[in-house]
This record gives sequence, C-alpha cells and structure tokens, in this order.
Amino acid sequence: MTGQSAIGTVDLDVDERRLAWVYLSRVVQGPCAPLSALIASVGVCEAARAVREHELPAALRGPTAARREMDSAARDLEAVQRIGGRVITPDDDEWPGWRMLGLDQLDTDRDREAAVPLVLWARGPLSLRTASERAVAVVGSRCSSGYGMQVASEIACDLAGRGWTIVSGAAFGIDAAAHRAALAVGGPTVAVLACGVDRPYPAQHDRLLAAIADSGLVVSEYPPGVAAQKHQFLARNRLIATLGDGVLVVEAGLRSGARNTVKWARRLGRPAMAVPGPVGSASSVGCHRMIREGEALLVTRAEDVIEEAGPLRLPVGEGAPTDPAHHLRGAEAEVYAALPAIGSRQPRDLAGQCGLDLATVRAVLPSLELADLVGCDSEGWFRTRRPG
Amino acid sequence: MTGQSAIGTVDLDVDERRLAWVYLSRVVQGPCAPLSALIASVGVCEAARAVREHELPAALRGPTAARREMDSAARDLEAVQRIGGRVITPDDDEWPGWRMLGLDQLDTDRDREAAVPLVLWARGPLSLRTASERAVAVVGSRCSSGYGMQVASEIACDLAGRGWTIVSGAAFGIDAAAHRAALAVGGPTVAVLACGVDRPYPAQHDRLLAAIADSGLVVSEYPPGVAAQKHQFLARNRLIATLGDGVLVVEAGLRSGARNTVKWARRLGRPAMAVPGPVGSASSVGCHRMIREGEALLVTRAEDVIEEAGPLRLPVGEGAPTDPAHHLRGAEAEVYAALPAIGSRQPRDLAGQCGLDLATVRAVLPSLELADLVGCDSEGWFRTRRPG
Repeated sequence: MTGQSAIGTVDLDVDERRLAWVYLSRVVQGPCAPLSALIASVGVCEAARAVREHELPAALRGPTAARREMDSAARDLEAVQRIGGRVITPDDDEWPGWRMLGLDQLDTDRDREAAVPLVLWARGPLSLRTASERAVAVVGSRCSSGYGMQVASEIACDLAGRGWTIVSGAAFGIDAAAHRAALAVGGPTVAVLACGVDRPYPAQHDRLLAAIADSGLVVSEYPPGVAAQKHQFLARNRLIATLGDGVLVVEAGLRSGARNTVKWARRLGRPAMAVPGPVGSASSVGCHRMIREGEALLVTRAEDVIEEAGPLRLPVGEGAPTDPAHHLRGAEAEVYAALPAIGSRQPRDLAGQCGLDLATVRAVLPSLELADLVGCDSEGWFRTRRPG
Repeated sequence: MTGQSAIGTVDLDVDERRLAWVYLSRVVQGPCAPLSALIASVGVCEAARAVREHELPAALRGPTAARREMDSAARDLEAVQRIGGRVITPDDDEWPGWRMLGLDQLDTDRDREAAVPLVLWARGPLSLRTASERAVAVVGSRCSSGYGMQVASEIACDLAGRGWTIVSGAAFGIDAAAHRAALAVGGPTVAVLACGVDRPYPAQHDRLLAAIADSGLVVSEYPPGVAAQKHQFLARNRLIATLGDGVLVVEAGLRSGARNTVKWARRLGRPAMAVPGPVGSASSVGCHRMIREGEALLVTRAEDVIEEAGPLRLPVGEGAPTDPAHHLRGAEAEVYAALPAIGSRQPRDLAGQCGLDLATVRAVLPSLELADLVGCDSEGWFRTRRPG
C-alpha cells in the first residue's frame, strides 16, 4: 500500500487522498485486487483519476463500470460522520497495517477477494490499531446450542478479561455470545459487518451493535448504505480472520460459514482452533470435522487459545534463543523490562515506571505469567528467569 | 518365536512343548523379554530345562528365582480345563502370530514389558486368531459419564454389528459398556484380564465375564489363580493394544489408564483414536488432551474408526496402485473377487460361490461399501470400480 503521506503535504493533499480512497471504496464496494495493484503502482490519487477518466487496464473496467461516474465521496464522509463514525484509510495512524501483511502476501490472481481492503468504515471509540494488537476471532454457528453459547461466553469472557479483543461478525448464535461476553466484562470487542456500518445486520441485533459501537468498534469495508449480500459475507470472513491473531470456532454445523473463516485464517498463517462438543450434537459436527482433518486445533479453554494465538508462544526446536523475553513486543516488552532481575514490583510501580496505565499493566502481567516469564507472590510480581 | 512344531513330531513332543510353555508362563508370570530371547535362541523345551536347572544368563536369574523350582504345569493345565478354558501357545493354530509382530519389533532392551506373551490363557468359544482378525480395542475411563457410556455403547454396537471384535479390559465404565454392546448384538468380544482367567476382576463383573466367556473370549497372560496387581494392568494394556487394529478411547480423565493403552498402540504402529465430549466434562479431559497433542485422532462414530483401523484404508499419495481392491485380505478379498465386473449378486449367491457362511458375507459387504468398492441396489451388490 502507499503508506503514510509524504512529509510536507498540506491538509489539502490529505483531503484529496482521503476523498480518493473514499471514492474508490464506493466504486468497487469490497475487495478488488486489480485496483489495489493499480494504487500500489501509481498512488491513490492517480488511481482515482484513472478510474474517473476510464483510463484503465482491462481487469479494472468491469469492477468499476457500474459506479465510476458517481463520485459520492464527500457525501459518504458526511454520512458516516452523522452517525458518529469515520473512515480509516491506509494513510491513518489507526490503520492496522501489520495485520494486512498477510492479505498482501496472498495470491490475488488466484482469488481476487484476497485483496487488502481499500478503507475500513468504523463506528466506536476503540482505535482499530490498538484493538487488533491482541485479538482473537471467535465465530461459529448461528444455530448454536445452549452448550455452544455457554462455552463461547466462557472463553470470550476469559479472553476479554485478559485484554484480548474479541473479533466476530455480530451474527446470531456464537458470534453474539462472544461479543456479549466481552461487553459484559468491559473488554474490547470488534464487530465486522458485511454491510455498511449504518445498517444493523441482523436487524434483531440493533441494540447489540449499538452497544458495540458505544464501547468497542463496528467496522466494514462497505460504504454506508450498502446492504448485506451473500458474497460479501465471504469477503467479511477474510477480514475477521485478518484482524485476529487466530480464529476460534466454538460450534459449527457441517455447512457453517465458520469453516470459510478458518480457511482464511489458514491462508493467512493464523492458527485455527475449534472447540469439541458431544458427538451427537449437529452443531459440533463441523468442529469435529475440522479437528479430525487437521484444519483446526482442538482447544477447550482460553488458556489453550492464548497458547496458540499469543505473541508469547515460546520458540521450540533447535537453535531457538534461550530467552523467550526476546520475543516480547509493545506493552509486554516494556513491563517485562521494568521488572528487576532480582526482587518484585507492584503493578502500580510498574505502570509509573513504564508510563503505562494501570489497567494495561494488569492485563499484561497475567499473559507474561502464562508464558512463564513472571510470577507473583505476596511481595508483587517478579521475573522467573535470568536474562538469557 | 519358535513357531510351529517340526514335521514328524509325535504327541509326546507336542505335550512336552506345551508343558514347557506352561511351566515358563508360571515361572515368570507376565512378559519377560530375556526369556523370550532365550526361547527364540534355543527353543522352548531347552529354555525350560535351562530355567529348571538354573543354567541362565544373568538377566534371567532374577525373574525366574521365585518360582523356577515349582513345576505346576500339569496342574495348571488341569485347572484351566476344569473351568472350560485352555492355554494358547505360539505352537497353536489359534495363536495370532501376525498380531504379535508389532511387539516382536519393539525395543525390549528399553522396556522389558514390551515382550511377546509366552502363552495366553483363555476361556470362551471364539478362536483368538479369528476374533483378532478384525478387531478394535475400545477402552476408557472407569468413572465414565452417562454421555460416555452412551457413545461407547453406540460405537461398539455399530462395530460389533459389522463383524468387528470389541477388545477391552472388562473394567467398570467404558470397558464394560463396550463389551455389553457387543454382546447385545451377538457380536464378538474379547476381555483381556490382568489376572488369571479363573478370577473375575472386578468381582462385580462376575456375570459380565461369564457372559463373555460364554460367547466371546476371556484371555490373560497370567496363569490361573494369579491375582491382579498394579504393574500387570500396564502389561495387560499392551495386550489390548496388540490384539486390535486400533485403539479407541471413549472417555478418559487426566490420569486415565487409557492413555497408557494409547501409548502402546502408538508404539505398535496402530491408530489411536479418541472421542471428544463437552469441554466442561472431567471425563473427556484426557481425550481432548490426546487429540490436542496429536496422540490420538478425533473420531465420532464407527465409520471413522473403520476408516482408520480398517484393512481397506485406501492408499494415498503418489505411486499408489489405482485398484484399492489389491489391498483386500481374507473374506473381503474372496467376496470382492466373487462379484462380477458387470452386474449384481445377492449375498446368498456370493456365500455359495465363496464357500463362506451368509453371516460373514453380510458382514463383509458393508465394509467393502465403506471402502467405495461395492454398491447395492434393488438388484443386489455390484462392484463400483473396474479392475485397475
């Protein structure tokens, strides 16, 4: 992608680029590999001009034909602002660029939907970049069982309580249970829609989506007003997989869409996980098949999920560095670095030392503990290993 | 092992060999790799003489010290005959020699219990060779749940109904459910005990064991009168794994003995399978762990088990022959050969043509169907493929 705007650009240029992104997002409505290729080659403003003036490679004529003459970019920006939303473009700090690297590296000739989204439309107070720093996609059957709802709630609650963002699709059943569990513990959650963020889909989840937009994030690559259509759900599933460190399927029937999300996770190199259930339950058949066929790893609880999806997964095999702390990133690295080689610290002290807020430190310590890097006793938190 | 008696031996020699096997079985009571090595080298009669006269390599002095001076072979044979039983030695046609090949090839230096049993004591009308031709070990937790009992019964019932022998350990819980399910459909079942076959263990399964001895087979490598002791259960588990084409664990807690049986299956190159369950259930924790850690394959029904354990597993990968019928053995090969390249046959005709009884033909056809080799319509059974 074109990345940040060059140093010295003025607001006018920023606006021009933003309008170009938004214009193109409306023209193609969804992933469009040939357009992404054009933008990468000539920049977003020049790509927008080429589309407008129909100076296009053959591959782009079809996808742009229907809407290239209708430039509603300014109107679209107003529309999303009216509902308290925004558009996130690759120029924005909030754009989770590192998450998109997987998509970038897929073979888009073979699958044109495997493209990086042009922009993401969003509603909600969370920063998409921050929210997707430690995130797990929790998905599953719309026709879930009581068992599935319970397991989805428990695992999502445990993950969200440890600071993991729950990414899902706001569908009936497992998706909704996962979002609600995150909301219930005040944890971060992101709903990825297959329609505009101004459209509650499904309609019965109007209030759930409002609650997510209140404290989490509702995102979509479709501009405001676009209705959900079947092929858009498959493209949406790829975004769900893209935004997480792994995909967890809690229940899935034989023909569940969750399997599609798992396929994306596997293409993106993210761990795919599935929860088993009673063998007589139709809503576990898909999970059992994915586990049996090696498409997903069996997990039964949040700890298993963190073990697979966590950034702290310990290196294994020969030649691995002896100090797993080398693999730490972000807040984890800071908190770990703030702990003395000998002796303990209280979270409050660590927060002060790192310039992080107490909640972040409290969220980070248990995951360091899970990685066996720190321990905790009556004195506070301490390192379990000497530096390697 | 020493194999069949030489041509031209008289009954006296046969008796001498049998008494030698029985004497040695009593002396070591259980697997004894150094003794098996001695027999392989000098023959069973000479090995018995060497033990009696204490002309032994150092490794055999300890294991034979306690009982080598007490030759109760004739009395043991009488004792087992009194309860309607018999001893099966490697000299007997009934000895399932091909089953023991796996044990033969294990590293007995590393694990002295990995030896081939000297003899098997048996009660029941089934031939051990025939019974173990198509057999699955079904094992699991003694503290099973209602769910586990139901699943064990259903799968064992389906397997036994298709002519598969259910091998298990007659323990409380899953073992008993598996045996009972086989008995209920008149299917073959073999109970392998960690004590003499004259001892009902557990005592509460007195009637179950009597029923198995009535129509199936109760076997043990321990001579009559030997009580169950802890280490004998581990050796017994190896025999359960040895006698099956695969091991299925239906439920297992974290410390279930079923995991030990699975380890034997893996050492013997037999497929290990486990049934998942609700993630909150303590009696499924062991199964989930084995699946998760790649020790066992997730299965949910008899078809899955047959796919893994069945002799008809289709070849995969490059260079595989195009005609999977090449892999058929025994009755399956005969029945398949009796089907014409074009046209159908009724089971009754096939039975007449092959000289097999109708029940066998009826048991074989569904497994050929599962392997996609035959189909069935109103005309009868037909081949689905042309010869390769």
